[in-house]
Amino acid sequence: MLSDLEVSNLITKTIQDVIGKSPVILHEPKFVGNEWVYLKECLDTGFVSSVGKFVDRFEFELASYTKSKYAIAVVNGTSALHIALILSGVKPGDEVLIPSLSFVATANAVTYCGAIPHFVESESVHLGLDALKIRDYLKSISEKKSGQLVNRNTGRVIRAIVPMHTFGHPVQLDELLKLAKDFSLILVEDAAESLGSYYDGKHTGTFGLFGTLSFNGNKTITTGGGGAILTQDESLAKHAKHITTTAKLAHRWDYVHDEIGYNYRMPNINAALGCAQLENLPMFLESKRKLFSKYKAAFSSLEFVSILEEPKNCSSNYWLQTLCLSDSVESARDSILENTNANGVMTRPCWRLLHSLAPFQNSPKMDLAVAESLEKKLINIPSSSFLINPSNL
Amino acid sequence: MLSDLEVSNLITKTIQDVIGKSPVILHEPKFVGNEWVYLKECLDTGFVSSVGKFVDRFEFELASYTKSKYAIAVVNGTSALHIALILSGVKPGDEVLIPSLSFVATANAVTYCGAIPHFVESESVHLGLDALKIRDYLKSISEKKSGQLVNRNTGRVIRAIVPMHTFGHPVQLDELLKLAKDFSLILVEDAAESLGSYYDGKHTGTFGLFGTLSFNGNKTITTGGGGAILTQDESLAKHAKHITTTAKLAHRWDYVHDEIGYNYRMPNINAALGCAQLENLPMFLESKRKLFSKYKAAFSSLEFVSILEEPKNCSSNYWLQTLCLSDSVESARDSILENTNANGVMTRPCWRLLHSLAPFQNSPKMDLAVAESLEKKLINIPSSSFLINPSNL
Ligand SMILES: Cc1ncc(COP(=O)(O)O)c(C=O)c1O
Ligand SMILES: Cc1ncc(COP(=O)(O)O)c(C=O)c1O
Repeated sequence: MLSDLEVSNLITKTIQDVIGKSPVILHEPKFVGNEWVYLKECLDTGFVSSVGKFVDRFEFELASYTKSKYAIAVVNGTSALHIALILSGVKPGDEVLIPSLSFVATANAVTYCGAIPHFVESESVHLGLDALKIRDYLKSISEKKSGQLVNRNTGRVIRAIVPMHTFGHPVQLDELLKLAKDFSLILVEDAAESLGSYYDGKHTGTFGLFGTLSFNGNKTITTGGGGAILTQDESLAKHAKHITTTAKLAHRWDYVHDEIGYNYRMPNINAALGCAQLENLPMFLESKRKLFSKYKAAFSSLEFVSILEEPKNCSSNYWLQTLCLSDSVESARDSILENTNANGVMTRPCWRLLHSLAPFQNSPKMDLAVAESLEKKLINIPSSSFLINPSNL
Repeated sequence: MLSDLEVSNLITKTIQDVIGKSPVILHEPKFVGNEWVYLKECLDTGFVSSVGKFVDRFEFELASYTKSKYAIAVVNGTSALHIALILSGVKPGDEVLIPSLSFVATANAVTYCGAIPHFVESESVHLGLDALKIRDYLKSISEKKSGQLVNRNTGRVIRAIVPMHTFGHPVQLDELLKLAKDFSLILVEDAAESLGSYYDGKHTGTFGLFGTLSFNGNKTITTGGGGAILTQDESLAKHAKHITTTAKLAHRWDYVHDEIGYNYRMPNINAALGCAQLENLPMFLESKRKLFSKYKAAFSSLEFVSILEEPKNCSSNYWLQTLCLSDSVESARDSILENTNANGVMTRPCWRLLHSLAPFQNSPKMDLAVAESLEKKLINIPSSSFLINPSNL
């Protein structure tokens, strides 16, 4: 039986065998394409803000890349989710089913609508929502009333379900889509982490009524700060554009706003960065996949830890490479985090489960045993493109 | 008596006498400083997003420039106002007094808090809130109950008042501060338009509990999209930073968020632009003031129109130059707008009064006769820095 220190040392060494000994952070962007050219063009033309061609172009290219009918660029992934929920009909006092195992933005966006996050269970292959367990749970606590799903315990309408593709690994969408249909739930995909990830050959974020992306600095591609709303519905796409740009009616000079709107527009300068980054996305993905293979080979010799692999029928972007500790070494988690970070290898655990955070402690939840067990086992390790063999690419 | 067409032709000609005949838009940014250098530094170091030195630097330099104790950079002026209102204690169901003569963002931010905009009257010298009329109005409709001001008609608490410095002209803050004190109202300044404007020698946005700025593309300086929260209170400043950056507690790897937070952080790349723009702000202000003098001289020959001048005791940034039609030619407004725009001189009326927009039609309001009369008379004309004599600067 290995001590926590021995486990930690082995993990640090294994990572360093793959990526070398220079200090590395968890994920950093690379600007090796047209970033500078496009930014310069913004400055030269004076178009950095709400006017300029890069926003349209970024939206067009995102739609082409994901094969989504429509893509609307916004200031970040959080605002994308906020608007997707509003346009899904989420109303103050509604409940929205979301994973407890997610970044806090998923829950925050629900509260911005005046709605209540209702935390549901994850499973351990893809780390996303467990459709079967949620089905049983909903059967036991909810009933349909005039076409709406009502939580018998709280009396509130459960309006939507928001699966999230954790660390880039697609959730099992088939089962979730069936669940949503059977229980009259709107499905919105939080695809913040999964640009470049496919379920059954189709890009994540294009299955639900909406899908949302993030281009934060730590994501596979970045716009500084940014996000996008994907949808296949023309009128929802138009509405999303309208409401994210202050809901102003088009007119040469008149200022009429016909509903409560938001200033969630992505500035042209951030979109310019996005256009350049998107051109290199295939190269980033290839590099991240290679990194995964190297890690996989290296960790295969350690029987107490495994590295998360894309689920079957899926292609993952391998945004964040993820170790999963076996039960026997769970207790070493914090010492692994200490040891790796002390040696310049930036790692982190997954997020604190959202139902345990102060602002959500009174939110409804189902049994979250799997999420709770995952919280103790998952560790993200350095995952940037180009960590290995940049010259091979 | 001149016809509408004659009035329009005279106005178009007078503007063109000042700025020439090339087509011009209302306001455009100029990038003639270190913009390139700083953006390139972001790309070269890889810091474009939440990590990087430009956000701290921009906040520091904004605070120095405005002599505000604290400045917190955020994604835009709307989000700045949203957070300022939350931290002022605005709660769902409260009312907030705001000018009907403002951009829609002022009202939207109130609704994001679940609060109700309550529209109050403007006056015609500085176009901002009329403290004396509002005082009389509040006397007649409100009463104090356990230290809070309650609207007798609606039963709701009136929590705050948000004066706005219209087109850069400072509102009469003395009277408003007295009013706020007497009626137990929190005062938040919407200084989105007034970076570089001073009331009684002190920068606008530094009088209230909070002041908020915008760096949208049409403002005096731009960050693409951006805004800032000003405050003189250390703990409010810390709270503003915390809540605009997802309310995450500092920790090397742990993800604990102790309240509902927002992703309102300004990305480093936008802050880089802001740092460069701020360096040239004095030059922009000088140029805009010269433009005002030229317009003033040119329009002095037309007795049916005046150009808005900074109120006494104030220094205005002259963000948007503003014509005010006399009653006799009010009917010519739309033909002036048509004529100028058709001749490549971009102009616009002031915003539609907010109380008349669909989403706010049921909001409480006082008599708004002055705002209603101003709506028919005000026209913004081309106002960019460098419209005249760039070589003189
Ligand atoms: C699962 C998830 N949802 C939402 C977001 C929010 O995206 P952003 O940071 O762009 O607001 C993120 C990323 O930060 C995320 O990981
Ligand atoms: C009076 C006023 N308030 C608020 C805002 C909102 O600022 P932003 O556009 O940066 O969100 C603006 C500018 O657009 C404004 O003119």
